[in-house]
Amino acid sequence: MKEKGLLVVISGPSGAGKGTICKALLEKNDFWLSVSATTRSPRVGEVDGVNYYFLSKEEFQNRIKNEGFLEYAEVYGNYYGTPKDSVLSAIDSGKDVVLEIDIQGALKVKETYPEGVFIFILPPSMKELRQRIINRGSETEESLMTRFKAAYKEINYVSKYNYAVVNDTVEEALKKIEGIVIAERCRVDRVKENILDSKEGIIHEQLYD
Amino acid sequence: MKEKGLLVVISGPSGAGKGTICKALLEKNDFWLSVSATTRSPRVGEVDGVNYYFLSKEEFQNRIKNEGFLEYAEVYGNYYGTPKDSVLSAIDSGKDVVLEIDIQGALKVKETYPEGVFIFILPPSMKELRQRIINRGSETEESLMTRFKAAYKEINYVSKYNYAVVNDTVEEALKKIEGIVIAERCRVDRVKENILDSKEGIIHEQLYD
Repeated sequence: MKEKGLLVVISGPSGAGKGTICKALLEKNDFWLSVSATTRSPRVGEVDGVNYYFLSKEEFQNRIKNEGFLEYAEVYGNYYGTPKDSVLSAIDSGKDVVLEIDIQGALKVKETYPEGVFIFILPPSMKELRQRIINRGSETEESLMTRFKAAYKEINYVSKYNYAVVNDTVEEALKKIEGIVIAERCRVDRVKENILDSKEGIIHEQLYD
Repeated sequence: MKEKGLLVVISGPSGAGKGTICKALLEKNDFWLSVSATTRSPRVGEVDGVNYYFLSKEEFQNRIKNEGFLEYAEVYGNYYGTPKDSVLSAIDSGKDVVLEIDIQGALKVKETYPEGVFIFILPPSMKELRQRIINRGSETEESLMTRFKAAYKEINYVSKYNYAVVNDTVEEALKKIEGIVIAERCRVDRVKENILDSKEGIIHEQLYD
């Protein structure tokens, strides 16, 4: 029996570094990255099915009606969402899928797919988080404070996640996430059926043959 | 706030290879191996406090009365047990403790210390398990069948554990156990308090200083 893949959700406050971690994770490992759908217009160079699935508002709303998203949100009049079918069929075929997603999105995914592996990326310190938000530039002092306060508040959501990974260095954070993936593949909750029930499992082999 | 160490319980049917795995694990990693107590007489070369703590029957029974063991058992008239105090104080000081223990013992430890990490070592196949039991030699056909049937039955206990690690090769099994230890150190259940409540935690830092 083919084992299902994992849904690994990388999430956390803005400025914690989840984007950098995800990029490094995908470069080094054999994960399947979910492509989001959106109703916003493609920017120059963006390819449909690679950067996003570009949908019309009507297509998107139809998919919402048919429960076609693991999660979706409306941001400044545009929809963004994670298509359910492609993710679930990748998982069923044994692939591990990575989702990089904000906290609100991650909590919605958890409702739809609680057996996912929910990893919260923490900044090494609040000072560092502030520095990272500043380093992104193009922020007024006011919007900086707003973003910073939001991030500060968002850290409370860590309790809804399975794992917390402090992003001191990308290498250390990667090592932890790779350890988490190895461990999750060994979790008895996930493999018990294969061990105990499967005809191909070791328990049903003939003793003497 | 100092984080507590983990209690890593390596267990499984006889012949699955837990001894070999534990030895390799301790050589490569900074774990603290718990020393068992026993009432049997020391063999030539065995050192008190290194191989075992050698206790009189009376001392052992007193410790049982005072709930001084994480688990204990009587085998052929001798007691064997895992001293509770030394294990718990190592954990409190932040050390990760490894226990190599049979299934009955592991289940008793789970009652006393449910926050332990319970890892079930599986043989790669029942054929391989039979071969390993045969390779140990000095078994009559009858005692071999008894041991084999016991191991076969014991595999059902996997569902009481957190993780199942198939012992294909010692290297692969080690890599999985090391991943499990990394992951368990990131589990939100374990670190939430440190993240959210600790005064030293990132959440209580002053925003601007």
